[in-house]
Amino acid sequence: MSKQQIGVVGMGVMGRNLALNIESRGYSVSIYNRSEARINNVIEANPGKKLFPAYTIEELVDSLEKPRRIMLMVKAGEATDLTIQSLLPHLDKGDILIDGGNTFFKDTIRRNEALASSGINFIGTGVSGGEEGALKGPSMMPGGQKEAYDLVKPIFEQMAAKANDGEPCVTYIGPNGAGHFVKMVHNGIEYGDMQLIAEAYDILTRVLDLSVEEVADIFTEWNKGELDSYLIEITADLLTRKDDLGTGKPLVDVILDAAGNKGTGKWTSQNALDLGTPLPLITESVFARYISALKDERVAASKIIPQPETTKFTGNKEEMIEKIRKALYFSKIMSYAQGFAQMRMASEENNWDLQYGEIAKIFRAGCIIRAQFLQNITDAYDRNPELKNLMLDEYFMNITTEYQSAVRDVVSLAVQTGVPSPTFSSAIAYYDSYRTEDLPANIIQAQRDYFGAHTYLRKDREGVFHYDWYGKE
Amino acid sequence: MSKQQIGVVGMGVMGRNLALNIESRGYSVSIYNRSEARINNVIEANPGKKLFPAYTIEELVDSLEKPRRIMLMVKAGEATDLTIQSLLPHLDKGDILIDGGNTFFKDTIRRNEALASSGINFIGTGVSGGEEGALKGPSMMPGGQKEAYDLVKPIFEQMAAKANDGEPCVTYIGPNGAGHFVKMVHNGIEYGDMQLIAEAYDILTRVLDLSVEEVADIFTEWNKGELDSYLIEITADLLTRKDDLGTGKPLVDVILDAAGNKGTGKWTSQNALDLGTPLPLITESVFARYISALKDERVAASKIIPQPETTKFTGNKEEMIEKIRKALYFSKIMSYAQGFAQMRMASEENNWDLQYGEIAKIFRAGCIIRAQFLQNITDAYDRNPELKNLMLDEYFMNITTEYQSAVRDVVSLAVQTGVPSPTFSSAIAYYDSYRTEDLPANIIQAQRDYFGAHTYLRKDREGVFHYDWYGKE
Repeated sequence: MSKQQIGVVGMGVMGRNLALNIESRGYSVSIYNRSEARINNVIEANPGKKLFPAYTIEELVDSLEKPRRIMLMVKAGEATDLTIQSLLPHLDKGDILIDGGNTFFKDTIRRNEALASSGINFIGTGVSGGEEGALKGPSMMPGGQKEAYDLVKPIFEQMAAKANDGEPCVTYIGPNGAGHFVKMVHNGIEYGDMQLIAEAYDILTRVLDLSVEEVADIFTEWNKGELDSYLIEITADLLTRKDDLGTGKPLVDVILDAAGNKGTGKWTSQNALDLGTPLPLITESVFARYISALKDERVAASKIIPQPETTKFTGNKEEMIEKIRKALYFSKIMSYAQGFAQMRMASEENNWDLQYGEIAKIFRAGCIIRAQFLQNITDAYDRNPELKNLMLDEYFMNITTEYQSAVRDVVSLAVQTGVPSPTFSSAIAYYDSYRTEDLPANIIQAQRDYFGAHTYLRKDREGVFHYDWYGKE
Repeated sequence: MSKQQIGVVGMGVMGRNLALNIESRGYSVSIYNRSEARINNVIEANPGKKLFPAYTIEELVDSLEKPRRIMLMVKAGEATDLTIQSLLPHLDKGDILIDGGNTFFKDTIRRNEALASSGINFIGTGVSGGEEGALKGPSMMPGGQKEAYDLVKPIFEQMAAKANDGEPCVTYIGPNGAGHFVKMVHNGIEYGDMQLIAEAYDILTRVLDLSVEEVADIFTEWNKGELDSYLIEITADLLTRKDDLGTGKPLVDVILDAAGNKGTGKWTSQNALDLGTPLPLITESVFARYISALKDERVAASKIIPQPETTKFTGNKEEMIEKIRKALYFSKIMSYAQGFAQMRMASEENNWDLQYGEIAKIFRAGCIIRAQFLQNITDAYDRNPELKNLMLDEYFMNITTEYQSAVRDVVSLAVQTGVPSPTFSSAIAYYDSYRTEDLPANIIQAQRDYFGAHTYLRKDREGVFHYDWYGKE
């Protein structure tokens, strides 16, 4: 009996769509799920395809050519460990397990190490693009043994999304957890992008008094320029939708303003805090979701806490709309600068040798943050692979230099009119902090030495110093 | 041979000072350290005191009256576990171990549970106030078995700092890790307070062009009013100090503006991210320290990234100084509102039944964040023990309502002149978010439903909804 080329475990919507995607590229695929019914559903719904049901783990393993390639599309966490345990007794040295779930990268590091001692290769791969992307072509971020990746590379390159220049949106990211780490940062960046768009919308509607329809047109216009991206595109589109339950209102006006989250933005912020790298914009966007979820408290507070005196903009609207566009692009640059700086810190700490330009490249299509703009990041790292911060690149420096006064005006307007702009504000604070030679952290160091004898360094000479604050020494 | 009343393990500066503090209240104290020399040093430096050397763990345990009270003042982490393991075989049921280190509260929960199975009580207590506080009276935050705390309460109440009204700055916080949790939030709040002061200093010196001496006078003035606090007091003082290495400059001008940290601020932010409670101000203050530490990058960036056109304030300086004072107080209120909301979330999650008014009370003296202001927090929780957010209390609402326009002006000024004000900005963004009935998180929910079928709730009816974005359903 002939063997199949790859196996997929887990026939949830992501697993099913990835299996169909792989099959559509000419590969034969064994599929397995704990529930037999779900396997049969997939087979029956896709007649004539090279999909082969495996009803037990043993059947699945037996059905595959060696070295076996088995992609796990199960719930991240315990389910992944249990699946690996059930597979392990049946595998041979050199076989390759691929975790395509939304796994925390430290779990991937742990699993990669544990399996390596049994001679099993383990690839953790980020998969971005949702259900649609899984089926038609996601952006993929694989990490693990390089030699193992080379054995799945042909499949991955065919199943991945293609950028405008035809290049597949997948590249080897690095050892062990590097792929899932980059996926995590991708998701954090996604949180930032979404919050920035929401703040722009809020200022446009509440301060400039524009209608939902007018803002839809503005986003459509913006999507033709340097902001061109999937998230701007779908925002322009979703703003045109009418409520499907017959209220006659724009859909967005009936949607509850309490944002959910699945924890990956939180992971990104917590990791940045561990690494000691500043990630304020993404973190503000996570907290903005948390505040939004306090709907009942906010409604109560809104009835008793007064607004500022001025809540409307009275100047030239066209000019302010353009300033908001510039603020959005400027702030997006700050967010990516922070995310890529985080990657650099993690790469150094974990010896991953991340290729930032290549990473930006594979974000160009397939994933949620796909955008023209990413090509500029690739170009920046092509110009200088050792770039310490994106804002030091000539393209980004020219843009931010030109746009900084617009951001200042937009933040001032929002602050004066009482419209919260945590990520716009955080963007300009990061920019101003990063370009400031002398920050007031000397005061903090003096305080720490005063109350805790924590010592301090000096600007003018080497060494560690402590001041005799109490006149005792 | 008569037994001693309490033992202290670990004769570092904190352990030694706490032992001396306890002894000064009339108690006999056995002291132990792994290094014999360190024990002898303490004994020799303090002749005539009721301090008794124990050169082995067995001697220490044997020397104590039962139930034994043993305070561990060792390095947080593995050293604490090793010390507990070495003590455990010699202890009896009902004995009480007290960890006074800067321990992560989840470690305290774990240790409390593990020891409870052997019948050993475990108290984790926050101790704030630095070396000086340890010796003369710290603020203490004990958590663990209530019945065990009752057996150390007389000692703790005598050794703790006393507020102006004579009340000791210690109270039973709650079960297992509650004490170390509250200490962690205290430290996070300390980070916020310090960054706010630094930003005020930065605007005063760089935008208002005041000298270090002038700012010292301003802080001295501020310390007489509602900002009256230890951190304002020491800031006023430290700004008057001259460099002790003979440059003739103010000391702060020679201190390197790269702030260190010991990780407790980071823990506070990471925990807030886990709890799902917004803590943007403290988190911005942690990130501000991280950015400050990038001194080399900042120096390089400062040479190539231009400033905004306007960097100086040209209006009425006296008025702006008063606005900065108001902005500082307003922002401090936002920071504490966030920290106390975090306590409320943690209390619910861990069934701690935290008493917020009592907690504010014990912060009034001994600890780094001690301030008159804390009495207002106690009063607020006395008025309403179920208060959801400090800014809903009448005192704080009156202040923030009156001060909000000052904050808006200060943030606008800082943003326009290019002086980073991440925590001032974050304070007003939090305030405006919390008092806003409809935030733009509806856009985020629409986006999430669009690209990931994450569903959404509605403002006008119950249920979970999904929109047919692609016209397939």
